[in-house]
Amino acid sequence: MNITIIGLGLIGGSMAIDLRKAGKSTRITGVDINATHARRSLELEIVDEILPEGDALSKADLVIITIPVNSITALLPVILDSIVDKTTVIDCGSTKHKICQSVQNHRRRNQFVACHPLAGTENSGPDAAFAGLFNGKTNIICDSEYSSEKSLGIATQVFETLGMKILYMEAEEHDRHVAYVSHLSHVSSFLLGQTVLDIEKDEKSIFNLASTGFASTVRLAKSSPEMWAPIFEQNVEHLGQALLEYIMHLQRFHYHLMKKDTKEINRILKSANDIRRVLEGMPTQSPAP
Amino acid sequence: MNITIIGLGLIGGSMAIDLRKAGKSTRITGVDINATHARRSLELEIVDEILPEGDALSKADLVIITIPVNSITALLPVILDSIVDKTTVIDCGSTKHKICQSVQNHRRRNQFVACHPLAGTENSGPDAAFAGLFNGKTNIICDSEYSSEKSLGIATQVFETLGMKILYMEAEEHDRHVAYVSHLSHVSSFLLGQTVLDIEKDEKSIFNLASTGFASTVRLAKSSPEMWAPIFEQNVEHLGQALLEYIMHLQRFHYHLMKKDTKEINRILKSANDIRRVLEGMPTQSPAP
Repeated sequence: MNITIIGLGLIGGSMAIDLRKAGKSTRITGVDINATHARRSLELEIVDEILPEGDALSKADLVIITIPVNSITALLPVILDSIVDKTTVIDCGSTKHKICQSVQNHRRRNQFVACHPLAGTENSGPDAAFAGLFNGKTNIICDSEYSSEKSLGIATQVFETLGMKILYMEAEEHDRHVAYVSHLSHVSSFLLGQTVLDIEKDEKSIFNLASTGFASTVRLAKSSPEMWAPIFEQNVEHLGQALLEYIMHLQRFHYHLMKKDTKEINRILKSANDIRRVLEGMPTQSPAP
Repeated sequence: MNITIIGLGLIGGSMAIDLRKAGKSTRITGVDINATHARRSLELEIVDEILPEGDALSKADLVIITIPVNSITALLPVILDSIVDKTTVIDCGSTKHKICQSVQNHRRRNQFVACHPLAGTENSGPDAAFAGLFNGKTNIICDSEYSSEKSLGIATQVFETLGMKILYMEAEEHDRHVAYVSHLSHVSSFLLGQTVLDIEKDEKSIFNLASTGFASTVRLAKSSPEMWAPIFEQNVEHLGQALLEYIMHLQRFHYHLMKKDTKEINRILKSANDIRRVLEGMPTQSPAP
């Protein structure tokens, strides 16, 4: 199987590593507008060759798109224009509604499978790629009724090879859910980082007092703005609502704190403890190598 | 050295384990109002014996207080009343101003060293205790000018034995700093957990989509309310201010998000990325055993 990967970063690179390892590819072709990432991917032997997009698409059996979501909505229709009948295209964007909308009426819509593998770290670029990133995690396939049986079969085979569980969902439902369990976490972490960095201007030694609790809460603030700003913008409706609810919870807590309402503060914290039930069913953080 | 530990949880238990290992104690006596924790600490051989507080204090060379901060302010004067001349008392509370205030004019104030070892996990009780929790982390000693040279020497020896770096600071300054780099992280995590748990009432399958990013951001929401509610209340002034600033940052981000102001969203995220500089200088999360 000839695989073309468009976007040679953490996700695209880690997929290439695992698919090659599993013997799923005869040849992996890379495409990246960032010349440094393209060169590093060759050096790291993540891809066999780098080609211009047109050449890389015309001979691919499978095209995997791992670029920021605003670039996916812009490029996906063009990519579907350029492929041949045998080709399957999957994307790995963290939003799904706008991406599916961008090819809704495309004559090759059924060769496209809308995917979101729930895996990643706060690092980016081909040097951040590593084997096993996806193992044990979940991939969401959205609006699968618009994909052909053949393309769905290939996508399923790819994600099972990566060791992923597959869930099916409507694009709109996907975006509503990830607004809460992924995008909001990132916003809370980015702004927590910003709040403490602001204080640092006056209190130089403040980070001497930061402990591992702070490090884990603020880890996601290291994430790539190029990747996350377009995600937040494409999911503005659901993320905006999630953010309002989060701010409301913080304000209510603040109100009870200032009133020194011990009983209510205890009740809020105890009720948040129920998150333990949820987290115990989840995979733990993959260590980057 | 006879060591008495008041409060046999994660912190007290982990200290006992490391101090015994290092050969610093001839006998470790435990005190806990929770009979289950007392019994478990004996079973786990964290302590040699359990005694009532009065008996445990009268023969101690060193008393380590590892109980919630509201219990420290209530008990510390009583503990200083009960000790003899040779005894040193250290506490491990996460706030320092109210605790120092509670014994400001006590005749044995100089036998007390106000400490805050910056270490912990989201778990609690003696079963959560483990060797090496403190290694490589930082301990803050506050208002050291009120402690005798002898007591400071003993405290220093204890924290160095645990492998900790020691910083000195005024209690008020300590509380202002930890409001931002510790207490605010906990509040943001508790309320993020609460926000997503609230949505779960309507969206049963939402946690199928939670990834490791969510798990790390919300980890602290598993922390003990019995420990954290009193910390938040004792640090209400600084935490209240930190929370206001955090909410202001979230609201400003929300405003730019709703306006789809790409440039400003990018600027905010890029500026938060500067947290990478800070985190790279910090110890990583200790794995619990």
